[in-house]
Amino acid sequence: MRIGFIGLGSMGAGMAAQLIKAGHEVTVWNRSPEAAAPLQAQGARVATTAAEAARDAEVLHSMLANDAALREVVFEGGVLEGLAPGAVHVNHATISIALATELVERHAARGVGYVAAPVFGRPDVAASGNLQVVAAGAPDAVARVQPLLEQLASRVWPMGDDPLRAGIVKIAGNFLIGAAIEAMAEATTLTRAHGVSAAEFLDVVTNTLFASPVYKNYGGMIAQERYTPPGFTLALGFKDVGLARAAADTKRVPMPFASVLHDALLESLARGDADIDFSGLARVAAARAHLED
Amino acid sequence: MRIGFIGLGSMGAGMAAQLIKAGHEVTVWNRSPEAAAPLQAQGARVATTAAEAARDAEVLHSMLANDAALREVVFEGGVLEGLAPGAVHVNHATISIALATELVERHAARGVGYVAAPVFGRPDVAASGNLQVVAAGAPDAVARVQPLLEQLASRVWPMGDDPLRAGIVKIAGNFLIGAAIEAMAEATTLTRAHGVSAAEFLDVVTNTLFASPVYKNYGGMIAQERYTPPGFTLALGFKDVGLARAAADTKRVPMPFASVLHDALLESLARGDADIDFSGLARVAAARAHLED
Amino acid sequence: MRIGFIGLGSMGAGMAAQLIKAGHEVTVWNRSPEAAAPLQAQGARVATTAAEAARDAEVLHSMLANDAALREVVFEGGVLEGLAPGAVHVNHATISIALATELVERHAARGVGYVAAPVFGRPDVAASGNLQVVAAGAPDAVARVQPLLEQLASRVWPMGDDPLRAGIVKIAGNFLIGAAIEAMAEATTLTRAHGVSAAEFLDVVTNTLFASPVYKNYGGMIAQERYTPPGFTLALGFKDVGLARAAADTKRVPMPFASVLHDALLESLARGDADIDFSGLARVAAARAHLED
Amino acid sequence: MRIGFIGLGSMGAGMAAQLIKAGHEVTVWNRSPEAAAPLQAQGARVATTAAEAARDAEVLHSMLANDAALREVVFEGGVLEGLAPGAVHVNHATISIALATELVERHAARGVGYVAAPVFGRPDVAASGNLQVVAAGAPDAVARVQPLLEQLASRVWPMGDDPLRAGIVKIAGNFLIGAAIEAMAEATTLTRAHGVSAAEFLDVVTNTLFASPVYKNYGGMIAQERYTPPGFTLALGFKDVGLARAAADTKRVPMPFASVLHDALLESLARGDADIDFSGLARVAAARAHLED
Repeated sequence: MRIGFIGLGSMGAGMAAQLIKAGHEVTVWNRSPEAAAPLQAQGARVATTAAEAARDAEVLHSMLANDAALREVVFEGGVLEGLAPGAVHVNHATISIALATELVERHAARGVGYVAAPVFGRPDVAASGNLQVVAAGAPDAVARVQPLLEQLASRVWPMGDDPLRAGIVKIAGNFLIGAAIEAMAEATTLTRAHGVSAAEFLDVVTNTLFASPVYKNYGGMIAQERYTPPGFTLALGFKDVGLARAAADTKRVPMPFASVLHDALLESLARGDADIDFSGLARVAAARAHLED
Repeated sequence: MRIGFIGLGSMGAGMAAQLIKAGHEVTVWNRSPEAAAPLQAQGARVATTAAEAARDAEVLHSMLANDAALREVVFEGGVLEGLAPGAVHVNHATISIALATELVERHAARGVGYVAAPVFGRPDVAASGNLQVVAAGAPDAVARVQPLLEQLASRVWPMGDDPLRAGIVKIAGNFLIGAAIEAMAEATTLTRAHGVSAAEFLDVVTNTLFASPVYKNYGGMIAQERYTPPGFTLALGFKDVGLARAAADTKRVPMPFASVLHDALLESLARGDADIDFSGLARVAAARAHLED
Repeated sequence: MRIGFIGLGSMGAGMAAQLIKAGHEVTVWNRSPEAAAPLQAQGARVATTAAEAARDAEVLHSMLANDAALREVVFEGGVLEGLAPGAVHVNHATISIALATELVERHAARGVGYVAAPVFGRPDVAASGNLQVVAAGAPDAVARVQPLLEQLASRVWPMGDDPLRAGIVKIAGNFLIGAAIEAMAEATTLTRAHGVSAAEFLDVVTNTLFASPVYKNYGGMIAQERYTPPGFTLALGFKDVGLARAAADTKRVPMPFASVLHDALLESLARGDADIDFSGLARVAAARAHLED
Repeated sequence: MRIGFIGLGSMGAGMAAQLIKAGHEVTVWNRSPEAAAPLQAQGARVATTAAEAARDAEVLHSMLANDAALREVVFEGGVLEGLAPGAVHVNHATISIALATELVERHAARGVGYVAAPVFGRPDVAASGNLQVVAAGAPDAVARVQPLLEQLASRVWPMGDDPLRAGIVKIAGNFLIGAAIEAMAEATTLTRAHGVSAAEFLDVVTNTLFASPVYKNYGGMIAQERYTPPGFTLALGFKDVGLARAAADTKRVPMPFASVLHDALLESLARGDADIDFSGLARVAAARAHLED
């Protein structure tokens, strides 16, 4: 299949590589062109503009950083106009419900399919094709891209016809990750204040009641107080909690944990921790209790 | 070994049964004597007072409901005085750090060993001898009771010499459970408001990122909105979050998630939900957003 | 002086009337033209577009509802282009720091003076010319409009050269009002649960320690549980707390009270209370404790 | 009248002096006897035990620091037993609802009158006899002590027959003070981050909307960042917010502002600020935003 792939960050690069490996004809584009080189070596064609990557694509994948980037590239950068009627745009990025709504409308208006397919998993998981993909969109569009999604995923979770449904699952899932980190941050500050190290405590709980990837991964970093290199930065965590809060505001859903998380994240950013890992939120809880870092 | 076991609630009964099954000579006691009958049928001797159960015991296990019950039975009910010098008291209950401190001092003063061995796991897990046991106390006392703990546990987590260390791990662990429930409550309220049911959302996350017992068990009840019969009541959850908060106050540890949890639990109790499952906290999040229950 | 006044809501109408009474030549405009009639009777000229009201004005006052209205009228509706170089725009509305920043830049680019002059006070206070006005802008522009501001105010509080400084004072002041309401809501729920009515409690505190307009006014409504007609709606309170939160986010200022307030306001809106008075937030606190309304 | 007065701290000393000045026969007692000397110079008799101060008193006033002190002196120190049947105990201290309940029962059992008469006002206000006194108790007991209370107060607020009603008014009032401080702390941190000093902002609001003693006094200290000498320490503020929270828990009243306040106070104590003024809570808000102190 002729595929376009725009957005080759740490996630997108691995995903595009999977599609190349599966034998598809892939044209890639990235704002800073260096990121395209390794994929070119694997057989990708490199477009000089995003619109060019969209032009001949039967399916266009996008994995851009945030609302602003997507808006700029898709609406202003000619991607939507470049897509042929009948093509399908598969958007993997985590975006606001507001932008998702607009994307649905504008793709429909142009007769281009739109599938929301946000993913759970860190870059190494993306690179090995083992993401969890949540997918929603018109049934025929989803059916068409299903084999591609399976290439990227250890499992594809169908969420029905409405792309917004996939979006809210991703947003709520990321909130749940943030809440797990804050909970571990507070719990380990409590145990430390009573003489039990974060590592000792997390060893027990993340191997028993909480033996799951999120607790093990982020908990492991908290246990070691090693927050660089980041798997996922605090700045991105702040963005994602913001998406949850915006989605909650729209529907009048009070989320006090999200509010606490927001305040803790602001404090992290005020400390200058924007570029460390999301799990580095644990520093805030410790600082509030005046424990040594 | 001659063992005493006091406190035969839904957890204690299963634990005592395991010790009987292992061939120990077990004397049991419970405030309301009906609970002792099934164990008598399994071979236990039934004491008429807690002190009597303590009298000849080489090791006394206790699994009482809360600080007040333990205080009444152990200090006022003659258990501590009844224990022979050299005996060991293994306390499985989740109690306050303040009472734990007092227990350590008073057992030491009488020359009786004291091991804190709180457990993670629901009643069915207790009955099958697969609890997670966190144990701390003087090394010789712990060594003596280690085989008994292994009878109860799928794993015994050693936490060192100081019984308070086992206590804080248990308290912080229970806080982590409460936080996971509140996080799921808020996340599912958010998805429901956007048209994705709690069951659909939790199916994705509890089988991937959050594939762990706590998320699966409590999440399962939230998905089905089925909060009775309770595995662990909201009233007990309220008590346990209170223990975390008291332990935090002592050491000046701000825990904003614990505060939110406390407020949500108060609202649950004000609704009249004390006797439903801890996961029923999800009703509060939904009520705040004025979603149908 | 030739004055334009756009935005004749419950606040603006009273303010414009003060300027007419002082003998100025006032041209008014309002989106729904009925609001202009009473002012016409008092001697105002009525413009058919906002731009027309701006055209000949030496000083243009605006008192529009929110960012969107101001943006539409001033930028898209031709007001800014209509103002003569050397004219001064006095903006009384409570707006976001982001929009304020943009207004400053665009007025400067056109050589039009810009004074931010947000006001504290309810409609009856506006009508009697006794507002508290916080004013900031270039010294010559402020000097020019000072007599007009004094017409509207019992006191004008100078805040320096930078219009953003007046804006943040207004935003922080409104947050303080919201916090006072939530504090009274919680305090009276507590006393009611212990048998002391809100009226009994507030009678004591609002005549002693808290004998100030905000506590007396909003407290009076809470004491009587009479939230209509609204002096200032919950929907507007929600908007203003949002402005505080946005301003806080920009500078990385954690504001946990603002977060609690936001969550309580969302719950108010979810209840359907958008159009009652801001003090009706007290219903949420009572509902959480399951007290009768 | 023959009066006993126990507890001569910064509040009690000024109150006792007022009673002496009014011509009563006053016997005073304080744990550390130095505090009694100035009152002796004014004509008081000095008792060597609290029980002795109670023995001949027609009315016994107490103004002790907290629950523990009152419990020790009144129950264990022989004060209650020392009071003659028919005497009245007027308790001015801010105590828990739990202890107040016990005091009511035990005084009734001994046939001694009990009036709860907590006070609002700082030490200088106490010394000048201008406190706000909230009084509740059996009508005849209250009537008997009314002239004494008027000696201490600029106004006595009658709260009915049940002493607990006066207690909850005091507790809720102190919560309201704490909330006002936290609100000012957050608001001034926000304005500072945007270039407006705390002094500039508070000058506007505490002379207009919030022109009341609490905002002026505590706001004045925040404006000057001068938290010593304390009028009322953070440690006492922490105690009082704790009383509000305990009273709320008993009746299942969620108070999210009280929870935030509690967490901020814990952070203050963790910083080592226990002995500075309650208004020093503002340091926490500034530290969270990483503003210079």
